[in-house]
Amino acid sequence: METLNVNLGDRSYPIYIGEQLLATGLLANHLQGSAVLVVSNETVAPLYLDSLVQSIPSSARCGHLLLPDGEAHKTLATATMVLDALVEQRYGRDACLIALGGGVVGDITGFAAACFQRGIDFIQVPTTLLAQVDASVGGKTGVNHVGGKNLIGAFHQPRCVLIDIETLNSLNQREYRAGLAEVVKHAAIRDMGFFGWLEEHTEDIDARTHHRLIYMVRRCCEIKAEIVAADEHEQGVRAILNFGHTFGHAIENAVGYGGWLHGEAVAAGMVMASDLSSRLGLLDDAFTARLIALLEALGLPVRPPPLDPEQVGAIMQGDKKVMRGRQRFVLLEQPGRAAINDDVPEALLDQLLDDYFRG
Amino acid sequence: METLNVNLGDRSYPIYIGEQLLATGLLANHLQGSAVLVVSNETVAPLYLDSLVQSIPSSARCGHLLLPDGEAHKTLATATMVLDALVEQRYGRDACLIALGGGVVGDITGFAAACFQRGIDFIQVPTTLLAQVDASVGGKTGVNHVGGKNLIGAFHQPRCVLIDIETLNSLNQREYRAGLAEVVKHAAIRDMGFFGWLEEHTEDIDARTHHRLIYMVRRCCEIKAEIVAADEHEQGVRAILNFGHTFGHAIENAVGYGGWLHGEAVAAGMVMASDLSSRLGLLDDAFTARLIALLEALGLPVRPPPLDPEQVGAIMQGDKKVMRGRQRFVLLEQPGRAAINDDVPEALLDQLLDDYFRG
Repeated sequence: METLNVNLGDRSYPIYIGEQLLATGLLANHLQGSAVLVVSNETVAPLYLDSLVQSIPSSARCGHLLLPDGEAHKTLATATMVLDALVEQRYGRDACLIALGGGVVGDITGFAAACFQRGIDFIQVPTTLLAQVDASVGGKTGVNHVGGKNLIGAFHQPRCVLIDIETLNSLNQREYRAGLAEVVKHAAIRDMGFFGWLEEHTEDIDARTHHRLIYMVRRCCEIKAEIVAADEHEQGVRAILNFGHTFGHAIENAVGYGGWLHGEAVAAGMVMASDLSSRLGLLDDAFTARLIALLEALGLPVRPPPLDPEQVGAIMQGDKKVMRGRQRFVLLEQPGRAAINDDVPEALLDQLLDDYFRG
Repeated sequence: METLNVNLGDRSYPIYIGEQLLATGLLANHLQGSAVLVVSNETVAPLYLDSLVQSIPSSARCGHLLLPDGEAHKTLATATMVLDALVEQRYGRDACLIALGGGVVGDITGFAAACFQRGIDFIQVPTTLLAQVDASVGGKTGVNHVGGKNLIGAFHQPRCVLIDIETLNSLNQREYRAGLAEVVKHAAIRDMGFFGWLEEHTEDIDARTHHRLIYMVRRCCEIKAEIVAADEHEQGVRAILNFGHTFGHAIENAVGYGGWLHGEAVAAGMVMASDLSSRLGLLDDAFTARLIALLEALGLPVRPPPLDPEQVGAIMQGDKKVMRGRQRFVLLEQPGRAAINDDVPEALLDQLLDDYFRG
């Protein structure tokens, strides 16, 4: 088992990564005196709820709540189901929520933990690759609003993150691959050594070879933890984690949620952001080609579907990363180094949208 | 004008207290680059919205939203109205909410600010005495749940608090007096010098003499700011601000919201907590008599209405201040010094409830 630490002063916490961690007593160390409510969904619970519950000390109160599965349910109404359960079952300030599932379960559960009695503890047990390498680390919690993704939320750090690589065995191919987009993102913005490692091991990654996955997930968590520790509330550098996401969110939104997975949209979005970096003269074209080759080797899309460029542009204007009317992009200054740029000429952006979306 | 500072590191903020502050340009200093949404209610807006809006620099975007008035509307549904307005009117991360009104408006607005895009700025402009001496300072925000008061919320500190004493002129007698209960609370838990000052000036206080009110509100804010600075997230000493509130909440709840005002219930609750302190041998009986005399001089109730003691006891068990099954009380160790006690014998509590509620 590997243990990383997210250094956030009195909000610091460990991330445990390994095989068969659900069956160990690791959680017990973090649950002294807590009344536990495990929050999961109808898909994940049949697979892992029993082994998780068995690892909780029998002296602790332990209930569970199953949410409907899917991004469409990442709403205030679903978060309210968790809050209602806490109130109705008379949980107090000593309650600890455990989020067992993917990013949706983690984001909703974390937000409910942030809001119940002005903040109770929670633990992330992510069971998808996307959640393991991204969503479960860093304390971003929240739900979607009909007007946009993640518009309602809070920063609320978990007490620990428990990543059991075994849970990836049950993930379907498409979900697994979508998670790899965030892996590539971590490498592209911060660590070309890791990017090279990914290029070398695409076959093992596709085969989900455990020791490779442990290294891969750990390296992503290290990169993310380092960035989060430097800027917990995203007032600066943390925004580079949104590389590919401005375009990605617009693609997801324009296609309609459920049409493209988040990771798939981010993959195409990263290609666009990399290309935009080149068009601005920041980055050599060769990197975009390398990025495309890696994403393709991992089975990810590298172009968005045909869409109305003007519609996409309008969606991007409404994206929450727009600050005071200026659109902000995460671009690459060089391979492995991302930076925020709010100075992209409009004509250049329009041309890019036109090139990618006019099928 | 008086200026106090709430010392919370990078979340520090000033509290301004004075006359006719709404008409000054004070707010402008805190609104550079912000898009403003003033949140108020149907009762307060006709009185003060215009002068507030006029004090906002004309270069700033400024909208407003009126909520329904009253504790019954302090719900997640009302907070969602604020969130919906922010999304629909395309406010971004640079939005700043201004809460213009009493505690309900402040709590809802602060909570919406805490949740929108994982936290935006907000400013408190409290217009009731209760909000000026208590609710607007310290960053507690939130809404009620059908299962209990303030069960959903967040700690989110305002950017500043602007207390215009003039707004108290428009408060009806009952609301004004209810606010005085929290004034007495601050004195009783922390400062017998201030308690004596209150005893001396009950007539001026009742007449709402401005210079007395400025001193009174300032002293309350000082006491609260000091306690909040020592324990922002109520993990220890901050809980003493709940003096009278365990009983008070139970009274409010048993009577039904709207029957007794919060401050009225807290007044009777403080008498009970003081009496309980005496019965435990912590405090001389004489203080309870003094407390009763002061509250009566200020026109506040000193006994709860007849209620079923068992019902009240059950409500208290469900109160969120119950930790791990033990009921916690804020008691007085001596006049002017409060402490947490979770060791009250059950029989003694039952006797107290019986004495006060069996009419």
